[in-house]
Amino acid sequence: MDKNEAINIVKPHLTKARMDHTLRVAETAVNLARQYGESEEKAELAAIFHDYAKYRSLDEMARWIKESTLPKDLLDYHHELWHGPVGSLLIEREYGITDADIKNAIYYHTTGRANMSKFEMIIYLADYIEPGRSFPGLDEVRKAAEGDLLHACFLVSKNTINYLMKKNATIYPDSFHAYNDFSRKVQAPV
Amino acid sequence: MDKNEAINIVKPHLTKARMDHTLRVAETAVNLARQYGESEEKAELAAIFHDYAKYRSLDEMARWIKESTLPKDLLDYHHELWHGPVGSLLIEREYGITDADIKNAIYYHTTGRANMSKFEMIIYLADYIEPGRSFPGLDEVRKAAEGDLLHACFLVSKNTINYLMKKNATIYPDSFHAYNDFSRKVQAPV
Repeated sequence: MDKNEAINIVKPHLTKARMDHTLRVAETAVNLARQYGESEEKAELAAIFHDYAKYRSLDEMARWIKESTLPKDLLDYHHELWHGPVGSLLIEREYGITDADIKNAIYYHTTGRANMSKFEMIIYLADYIEPGRSFPGLDEVRKAAEGDLLHACFLVSKNTINYLMKKNATIYPDSFHAYNDFSRKVQAPV
Repeated sequence: MDKNEAINIVKPHLTKARMDHTLRVAETAVNLARQYGESEEKAELAAIFHDYAKYRSLDEMARWIKESTLPKDLLDYHHELWHGPVGSLLIEREYGITDADIKNAIYYHTTGRANMSKFEMIIYLADYIEPGRSFPGLDEVRKAAEGDLLHACFLVSKNTINYLMKKNATIYPDSFHAYNDFSRKVQAPV
């Protein structure tokens, strides 16, 4: 599938603002892929589809979770976490995209997980640092992204957990596993 | 076992400073037990033994973890987490203490866990707020402890995770499960 075909598929499902964000994530992901030696085309495609399921109704997402092999415990956590896994499912069902890198990058773009591939990290990071974002601590992440993918992702996972804890929100186990895994690897690089 | 017998058992295994801490935890635990309707004698005993294994050598603690049914993943996390589970094991092996409340309270006093009993929470909280402690945020926890055991423990778990994340340290899964569980219950009290 080429870039324009992907954009034409995704566009009707997103708001204008979300589509603009998506295109910025795609550009950022392409740059990171070039920098860190991953496929630029695949990174672009994963980024274009990363929020594909974002505006599905909660009922529809819950139904997909219940009727598929997606983990049921997602339903016990905030619905903001559902669109990644559901999007990963839908792009295969609706457009036959079976590439594991793309599917996993979309699946885990919100939470991260332990042992993320470089490709997954690129989408996770691109979504966080694309030029339209503005979070506390973002400058440090952007700076880290220039030379150290792992350290940048460690900061993303840490900032995300801190953000959720400030709101007293629950935190999906994969987010913690990502943090612990990054923490180990940052302190004892392999 | 009575209080003095327990103190005489524990004392030779701790430093003077740690023993003073232990006695303050015991006094705090007795007060919390009275306040929240748990057995004061059992709370006192659990508190006296809570750091029983604290100064065992790392080799000995690792051996107990390997040779018992304690979870092996403890060995992948900081050794500061080992003395609770190992202490809970040793008080049964060495002194025949089989009371599940006491054993669990000692086991989980460092990390917490999901679905802590009121009794476990009392030891977990007493260890954190005993009058010799001074942490950032402690006043808020002490105030919460006066009327809301669950909320006080939620703050302990949150502060603990924040403290570890500031050090970029790994966090044992039970600590996260405790946080998530408290977070849910604090927001939708049962």
